[in-house]
Amino acid sequence: MNYRMISRIVGLALLIEGGLMLLPFVAGLFYSERSWEFLCVALAAAAVGLLFVLVKPKTSTIYAQEGFVSVTLVWLLMSVFGAIPFVISGDIPRFVDAFFETVSGFTTTGASVVNNVEGMSKAGLFWRSFTHWIGGMGVLVFIMAVLPMSGDHSMHIMRAEVPGPVVGKLVPRAKETAKILYLIYAGLTILETFFLMAGGMSFFDALLHAFGTAGTGGFSTKNAGVTAFNSPYIEVVIPVFLMLFGINFNLYYLILIGKGKEALKSEELHVYLLIIITATLSITAGITGLFGSFGTALRTAFFYVLSILTTAGFTGADYMQWPQYTLIIIVVLMFIGGCAGSTGGGMKVSRVMLLIKNSAAEIHHMISPRRVKKVRLDGKVVEDGVLKTVSSFFFLYLFVLFACAFIISFDGFDFSTNFTASLSCISNIGPGLSGVGPTENYYAFSAVSKYVMSLTMLLGRLEIYPIVITVISLVKRK
Amino acid sequence: MNYRMISRIVGLALLIEGGLMLLPFVAGLFYSERSWEFLCVALAAAAVGLLFVLVKPKTSTIYAQEGFVSVTLVWLLMSVFGAIPFVISGDIPRFVDAFFETVSGFTTTGASVVNNVEGMSKAGLFWRSFTHWIGGMGVLVFIMAVLPMSGDHSMHIMRAEVPGPVVGKLVPRAKETAKILYLIYAGLTILETFFLMAGGMSFFDALLHAFGTAGTGGFSTKNAGVTAFNSPYIEVVIPVFLMLFGINFNLYYLILIGKGKEALKSEELHVYLLIIITATLSITAGITGLFGSFGTALRTAFFYVLSILTTAGFTGADYMQWPQYTLIIIVVLMFIGGCAGSTGGGMKVSRVMLLIKNSAAEIHHMISPRRVKKVRLDGKVVEDGVLKTVSSFFFLYLFVLFACAFIISFDGFDFSTNFTASLSCISNIGPGLSGVGPTENYYAFSAVSKYVMSLTMLLGRLEIYPIVITVISLVKRK
Repeated sequence: MNYRMISRIVGLALLIEGGLMLLPFVAGLFYSERSWEFLCVALAAAAVGLLFVLVKPKTSTIYAQEGFVSVTLVWLLMSVFGAIPFVISGDIPRFVDAFFETVSGFTTTGASVVNNVEGMSKAGLFWRSFTHWIGGMGVLVFIMAVLPMSGDHSMHIMRAEVPGPVVGKLVPRAKETAKILYLIYAGLTILETFFLMAGGMSFFDALLHAFGTAGTGGFSTKNAGVTAFNSPYIEVVIPVFLMLFGINFNLYYLILIGKGKEALKSEELHVYLLIIITATLSITAGITGLFGSFGTALRTAFFYVLSILTTAGFTGADYMQWPQYTLIIIVVLMFIGGCAGSTGGGMKVSRVMLLIKNSAAEIHHMISPRRVKKVRLDGKVVEDGVLKTVSSFFFLYLFVLFACAFIISFDGFDFSTNFTASLSCISNIGPGLSGVGPTENYYAFSAVSKYVMSLTMLLGRLEIYPIVITVISLVKRK
Repeated sequence: MNYRMISRIVGLALLIEGGLMLLPFVAGLFYSERSWEFLCVALAAAAVGLLFVLVKPKTSTIYAQEGFVSVTLVWLLMSVFGAIPFVISGDIPRFVDAFFETVSGFTTTGASVVNNVEGMSKAGLFWRSFTHWIGGMGVLVFIMAVLPMSGDHSMHIMRAEVPGPVVGKLVPRAKETAKILYLIYAGLTILETFFLMAGGMSFFDALLHAFGTAGTGGFSTKNAGVTAFNSPYIEVVIPVFLMLFGINFNLYYLILIGKGKEALKSEELHVYLLIIITATLSITAGITGLFGSFGTALRTAFFYVLSILTTAGFTGADYMQWPQYTLIIIVVLMFIGGCAGSTGGGMKVSRVMLLIKNSAAEIHHMISPRRVKKVRLDGKVVEDGVLKTVSSFFFLYLFVLFACAFIISFDGFDFSTNFTASLSCISNIGPGLSGVGPTENYYAFSAVSKYVMSLTMLLGRLEIYPIVITVISLVKRK
């Protein structure tokens, strides 16, 4: 393995993190806070990063394995450094809590251990939401966009960091692809900030909620979540943008280069929209009585369907009071997640589609054993290798889910809490049911559980394989 | 499709059911009950069966599709006829309840809607437990064992009815295989009856509990379940026999023909025993405090691990009072189930092994893309086709699980109840958590839920494909 190159990549990421950490420092200054902790940790991260970067690689060639290991180490180290300012400032005094919150931020989970969000410093709030934005598209993709890196091999990093079963290069060079992705990402974030300000939010709140939407993270600046703004307009703007951020970014690129028609033909997009419509209407039917008006019920259902499906996990009304069947819908949405190549987490719509199509082909094969029916997506035959990876991913997903639920169950919470907290972590959502419902948070779990859930969030965001392969690579080395 | 041949197979099954129903009638007579309802329904089933059998097939050739359709129709019709005596006798007055109980019996689920089991007639109790025994090995396998049927094609029926990813013929002729399976099955049942009587059970109770053990069904003759006998000896005999019935019957055949060493090499057997030991010790550690003695805790843990893993679902102590982590173990055991080719339900140990091995091979492939690592079981390479079917089965399993949970959630029970009731049905277990915990039953669900759960139990017992393929075949015909 090319350890020197891995060191270089990790170093670059820490340098970038150091740079990005200056933003919360500046935000703090603006609000007359003396947030020196962010400046100090920024410098520390940059210094450590520099040490790593100074290692001269003999060759810049890396393969899939190096890509996986780099991504895992980057996400782990960034979370460690990212947590320190919270501890120093006292916003989140215990390291385990700060680490959980930071991993939850970077992985765009949005599960929180902070009981009084409104009591945090502005710099702290900024950094907390900004981690969503950084983690949404991926920090290594960002590096690829802004720095010169060796050509083709950087694709291995992109594959390891961008969610979804298949990563398509938009343009021949990975660097250009990364740049385009980030431009779309930033553009939509700015647009949402304007829309939210138009609804009466301050620039600070608007920007931070836009970060949370863009990364489909879900941290809010208010204890009561989005409902705190008491604005039906905002409760519509956020899910609409969530819907946009939950779509495969390749489609935006196609639209930008004038191939809009092709983009609209995406099967995954159709299924994604179908899920949104069906789930919203089904939930609306069950809660119209509770809210007294069809309009409010529809809006609330739409808000939650998008919040959960895109795995943002913004909270508002307490759905634990809703009919039980709506909770099953919510749990199913928690599994599905956003589209591949979006910032959403979960299994991804296209993976679920491939699993369904694979099963349909299997049944077809049993009825007519002689005719072979190939699985197709967007008209193209899906290779057996991809189907195999998707099936194996599905199994590992549930394996991690139950392993995490098992360990956290030692804290003594009930089955719904353990199962959905674990599902919420692997799918990078935030809220779950019962003890981790929309009005609760993760503070009550033990330190061991918080570390295990942090690992589960990372496994979810990086889609399991990179972390597993890193562990195997490091163990085998010895 | 060869409808005439399907009619003949269904007819034969109903004739057999009519014959088998004479046993509860005789049992009733023995206890001075006038259980005429069993005689009448036996005659009715036989008469309808005769009508179906009289259809002369043009050819006796059938393919996989006919096998699937026959099995589905047989199980459905047998459940309908099997339910009627309960309604007539008043043991279970409502048809939906009687149907649920009969499906639960035949599918060896053991989920009950009877609040006062001890108030049932002896004939009713006998039939209720006897359905477990009939369903455990499969009624069509029984027909193949006792009646002359056209050679090779009967293998299609066997494949559709015997649980597991691959059905191996023990001997070249399917008829002989079926006969050997039933001889082992009957032999072990008689053996257990003796062992239970030695522990002080009456012949009636011993035989019925042996039926429930053999089919891994779990119906008891007492309201309090197995604990009612207040005998540590019985609480050990039952799990030991459950362990035996949860093993692939092919292994017994190998032992019988003197190839015992080969049988003991079975990888599935090793993993099965490993699961039993690990789960038992893990649960024992958590409940020793509750029971005050290590011995009692170990015995209770062993009892429940076998009861749940083999999917019998016999109940005793109330595990809802145990530490939460033991409940997660129980839920995981509910998924796994017994060995392939045993009478146990669930996913089956070998399927879970193939899923794990497939994922390991996938990770291996990602690390070294050029080396192809084949999945092996018992040293033999597992074909890609089998792996594909197993993966697709796993997805459909969870799909049915959530679909069932969704529909029954309209009854308003909580998430744990809905999720585990549904899991309990698809895995053919019986008890679940919360509202369907070991001290509860399924009586409180609505009629719609009971029919949906009956369908789920059938989907579980017949391993999904036969029923799906039957529905598709019948719809496409029009």
